[in-house]
Amino acid sequence: MSRLLIEQLNEEQLAEVKRQMAIYSQGTQEIIPTEELAAKVAKSVLKNQPLKIKLGLDPSAPDVHLGHTVVLNKLRQFQENGHTIQLLIGDFTGKIGDPTGKSVARKQLTDEEVKHNAKTYFEQFAKVIDMDKVELHYNSEWLSQLSFEDVINLAGKITVARLLERDDFEERIAFRKPISLHEFFYPLMQGYDSVVLESDIELGGTDQHFNILMGRHFQEKFAKEKQVAILMPLLEGLDGVDKMSKSKKNYIGIDESPQEMYGKAMSIPDELMNKYFELVTDFTPEQIETIKDQIKTAVLHPRDAKMLLGKTIVRMYHGTEAAEKAEQHFISIFQKGLMPDVIPVINWKGKTEITIIDLLIDLKLFNSKGEARRMIENRGVKINGNKVEDTELQITITNNLIVQVGKRKYLKIKL
Amino acid sequence: MSRLLIEQLNEEQLAEVKRQMAIYSQGTQEIIPTEELAAKVAKSVLKNQPLKIKLGLDPSAPDVHLGHTVVLNKLRQFQENGHTIQLLIGDFTGKIGDPTGKSVARKQLTDEEVKHNAKTYFEQFAKVIDMDKVELHYNSEWLSQLSFEDVINLAGKITVARLLERDDFEERIAFRKPISLHEFFYPLMQGYDSVVLESDIELGGTDQHFNILMGRHFQEKFAKEKQVAILMPLLEGLDGVDKMSKSKKNYIGIDESPQEMYGKAMSIPDELMNKYFELVTDFTPEQIETIKDQIKTAVLHPRDAKMLLGKTIVRMYHGTEAAEKAEQHFISIFQKGLMPDVIPVINWKGKTEITIIDLLIDLKLFNSKGEARRMIENRGVKINGNKVEDTELQITITNNLIVQVGKRKYLKIKL
Repeated sequence: MSRLLIEQLNEEQLAEVKRQMAIYSQGTQEIIPTEELAAKVAKSVLKNQPLKIKLGLDPSAPDVHLGHTVVLNKLRQFQENGHTIQLLIGDFTGKIGDPTGKSVARKQLTDEEVKHNAKTYFEQFAKVIDMDKVELHYNSEWLSQLSFEDVINLAGKITVARLLERDDFEERIAFRKPISLHEFFYPLMQGYDSVVLESDIELGGTDQHFNILMGRHFQEKFAKEKQVAILMPLLEGLDGVDKMSKSKKNYIGIDESPQEMYGKAMSIPDELMNKYFELVTDFTPEQIETIKDQIKTAVLHPRDAKMLLGKTIVRMYHGTEAAEKAEQHFISIFQKGLMPDVIPVINWKGKTEITIIDLLIDLKLFNSKGEARRMIENRGVKINGNKVEDTELQITITNNLIVQVGKRKYLKIKL
Repeated sequence: MSRLLIEQLNEEQLAEVKRQMAIYSQGTQEIIPTEELAAKVAKSVLKNQPLKIKLGLDPSAPDVHLGHTVVLNKLRQFQENGHTIQLLIGDFTGKIGDPTGKSVARKQLTDEEVKHNAKTYFEQFAKVIDMDKVELHYNSEWLSQLSFEDVINLAGKITVARLLERDDFEERIAFRKPISLHEFFYPLMQGYDSVVLESDIELGGTDQHFNILMGRHFQEKFAKEKQVAILMPLLEGLDGVDKMSKSKKNYIGIDESPQEMYGKAMSIPDELMNKYFELVTDFTPEQIETIKDQIKTAVLHPRDAKMLLGKTIVRMYHGTEAAEKAEQHFISIFQKGLMPDVIPVINWKGKTEITIIDLLIDLKLFNSKGEARRMIENRGVKINGNKVEDTELQITITNNLIVQVGKRKYLKIKL
């Protein structure tokens, strides 16, 4: 089919298919299968029909950080090329929760919570994709309508062995850890959603490999055209080790202030810079190649590259002006020698919500609360370069938070 | 609980519990667990409350033979002691059929077929149990009402490992034969039926071991009193090897004529006689012990014991008069020397539906159809001792069919 289609394309159309394929392939971990993606893009170009690109969302965790934007950026690329985004809110599972009550992640949500979380998602997504052009779907619409007979028919289209191939199931069988039968239904649902939505492509992180292939499986069983899986790499967080996540506190939230964002971006390990350029910026493949080359050939100093990265991230979520300001702020503090290059690091084990005075005491910067209060009143305490003006200030401890007392005392907090 | 209950019983009540337990235990393969059955019977005696005894029926195979009466006789014993029989027609599964279309046994049935089959069952069951006192249930009543959410909740109450313990699943996993996910639901449904019916006891053959224990499992998960499983041995058919079944043609149907029944009973292997007395007659445990003793001590000749068995079976399904007649018929043919004791046996590989003339030719009893026809016209051909009057007669070949030509030529057909 692929070759047949490509033969029908004129030169201009063929160039367009190649152009789109270069964009969609950028930074992906895996496309399953690439030739089907090419065929779909070709068909779309030939018939001037948009493709349907599905992204499934778990309605229980609406805080969006840069880790999430890896797939969002890929969605944006499709949207910019005229394709249709299908955002699928998995509200059915959210409303059911976990019948065994064992999974904390699958807490049962009310209709209101689902709506509120979806809204929170959308507000944040609007910073990356054009939400006006997005199709929104809630899978409770069709899943709640399924009868037992429908469920049995669905279950008749897959084998137990195929489900047990999922890594975590396989592992649990091997270690004789129980798998509750209802857990088999989550991949089934995700697959069936693609049948209903007739998705052409489903996006997800590599951890969604199995579930997204379920879509292909069930679409085939229901005699639909099979979707292509585009799997994006998982983005390591600021620690350079774990996947970026809220619970690991190694994230940059897309709702954070320009200064926070910029500051956090500057703490990204050098070796992850290329990956961040590829996955979280809106640079074209060519631009990224140029940057990579410049870093490699030492034309661009890693610190400058990282500043470019930080500035780009801030620009994407707060605009050009905020990006300039965040850079200036950083330069004024970090680069103009106001802060030493090497700052002692404290591994923080305490509370993450704390008053400024308790923090200063806990960090052993002062021996008494009185001393600490006087220093604040004398405007001698700074948090991330900002003067503390209120002795009652509540601090939320984040990773890499810098506490400065007087001219020369600095501490950096690691979580 | 059991001991507590037994302490509350007076002597008369205790004797009653023991009497019932002796009856219910007769001929059973396994009671899981016996002490819970005793507790349930004790409670029933103490509170003068009937127990609910469930038997599940597959609506696809309504031909009732002696193999089925093993559980029916057990049901009858409960009914005679005032307990309530719950006949559960598994029409939900019957109506669904097998979504993969692979199982011939699970052919999809219409409402009319289910009703017709159920009626056929009941007419035949009426020969063993009092159908007026039976509770009839169709599981489509509640199963068709389950939503996907309900199904997930149900599935959340059992593990995959537990389901894979079922012998046939375990075997298929071991031999890498596929198990379709929907197959996991049949035991779930059977278990859930017991939850809805609040059954105290479920009866079945030993092949129902796993499925009946599902009832206990789900009743416990739904905070109900657990049912007791009473498993009856599987009755070998007339060949003495395979489980009695229509497909193996080794059965005695309870709708067969007195003569057929009696004749077939006489072909039961000697070594199975005790089992047949225990499982398919209405004799009391004491009567059966007496018969066994008499056979053992040669007071009763095996042939006479078998005639008693045959006469008893005919009496149960056709009444005393028909039983007498069937015995007389047998004696007149087999015992008065009209048939030789040893009849040559032919292993039949041909069609089972055949005209009388083709049969005589295939058996090489005649060289030409003309000869065969003339012998029939001269009333010289008998099938199972009955004169053939019609030269166009259609014969259905059954095991042990005896063909007689003239006075001395006999053949017995084995399938």
